[in-house]
Amino acid sequence: MRIIVVGGFGTIGSAVVNELKGRHDILIAGRSRGDLIVDMRSEESIRSMFQKAGKFDAVVITAGNVLFEDLSQMNSQKYAVGLNDKLMGQVNCVLIGSQLIAHNGSFTLTSGILSQEPTHLSTSASMVNGAIDGFVRAAALELPNGIRINAVSPTLLVESLDLFGAFFRGYEPVPASKVALAYSKSVEGAQTGQVYRVGY
Amino acid sequence: MRIIVVGGFGTIGSAVVNELKGRHDILIAGRSRGDLIVDMRSEESIRSMFQKAGKFDAVVITAGNVLFEDLSQMNSQKYAVGLNDKLMGQVNCVLIGSQLIAHNGSFTLTSGILSQEPTHLSTSASMVNGAIDGFVRAAALELPNGIRINAVSPTLLVESLDLFGAFFRGYEPVPASKVALAYSKSVEGAQTGQVYRVGY
Repeated sequence: MRIIVVGGFGTIGSAVVNELKGRHDILIAGRSRGDLIVDMRSEESIRSMFQKAGKFDAVVITAGNVLFEDLSQMNSQKYAVGLNDKLMGQVNCVLIGSQLIAHNGSFTLTSGILSQEPTHLSTSASMVNGAIDGFVRAAALELPNGIRINAVSPTLLVESLDLFGAFFRGYEPVPASKVALAYSKSVEGAQTGQVYRVGY
Repeated sequence: MRIIVVGGFGTIGSAVVNELKGRHDILIAGRSRGDLIVDMRSEESIRSMFQKAGKFDAVVITAGNVLFEDLSQMNSQKYAVGLNDKLMGQVNCVLIGSQLIAHNGSFTLTSGILSQEPTHLSTSASMVNGAIDGFVRAAALELPNGIRINAVSPTLLVESLDLFGAFFRGYEPVPASKVALAYSKSVEGAQTGQVYRVGY
């Protein structure tokens, strides 16, 4: 398969690339470098990425920002960061990419544990992750031509312990290589409309 | 208690008012009529509603629109309808209202079954409902002064069968009076961060 990995230089993305590259052709899409350049906040940028990619069979997205901030300091503009980037960025990749992807292709999105097990500062992430899971379950019913869609919802990564461990005390971390298996299951398996929880 | 019910003239809202009015003072907020006028898409309008309300102990929100449309016809502007109204409308009621509500007060938001059990045309509703559930779980960790927050996630209503039954074949409908009990549990109970599923 020819697979686009949006965010393929990130901690999860590079593990996904490692998992899939022995069996498939991988195109890495990044915001500033890679085989393809994309800023998911822009529909034009997403459209340009897919047009430059040529034919493709699967899209994995492991990118998208949200703000982590006290609820008391949040406002609509700050929630819009996560809604426009991690949520609508991924959704727009599906809306635009589904017009170009091969029949029986697949989209694999990334949400996360915080929708189910929130922490301090996580209201935006919890909102966005829940939105992605709900969207994926519903979009699976309507995608044409055998196109599938799933989400991977990981817990804290071993590789992120230094950076985020203090916000996730008691969360058992998993290595990115284990999370990558869920993307493989989505891309190379047959299921659709699933939210694969990893590590919780 | 003095309770603001946003959307108190709707099918669920009026059942909530019926459930609570014998024990509490109710202020109904509607978009065009009621004790208070509010358009949840406007933060100014939300602020004005709370300022006119005087002191209050609880806010129930049973309002908020989303579009129901084929995935192939959706785009960011159409998703923005649900994100700005049902999602951020309710979230902004919490952000703004939490600065004015009584200590140990509560917010009760409305999501719905479609995040878990989607139907055709429901990608926006499924997204928004999942976002609300995630937000509520996280916001409960950070609201100050003993303020609580829960969501009610109902299935199809008996009262909505004529209008929506064709989109929800096989979903067992529940009467709005049963859904109203979950709002009572949220407002008059002690739990926080809960998503009360009703009828599924």
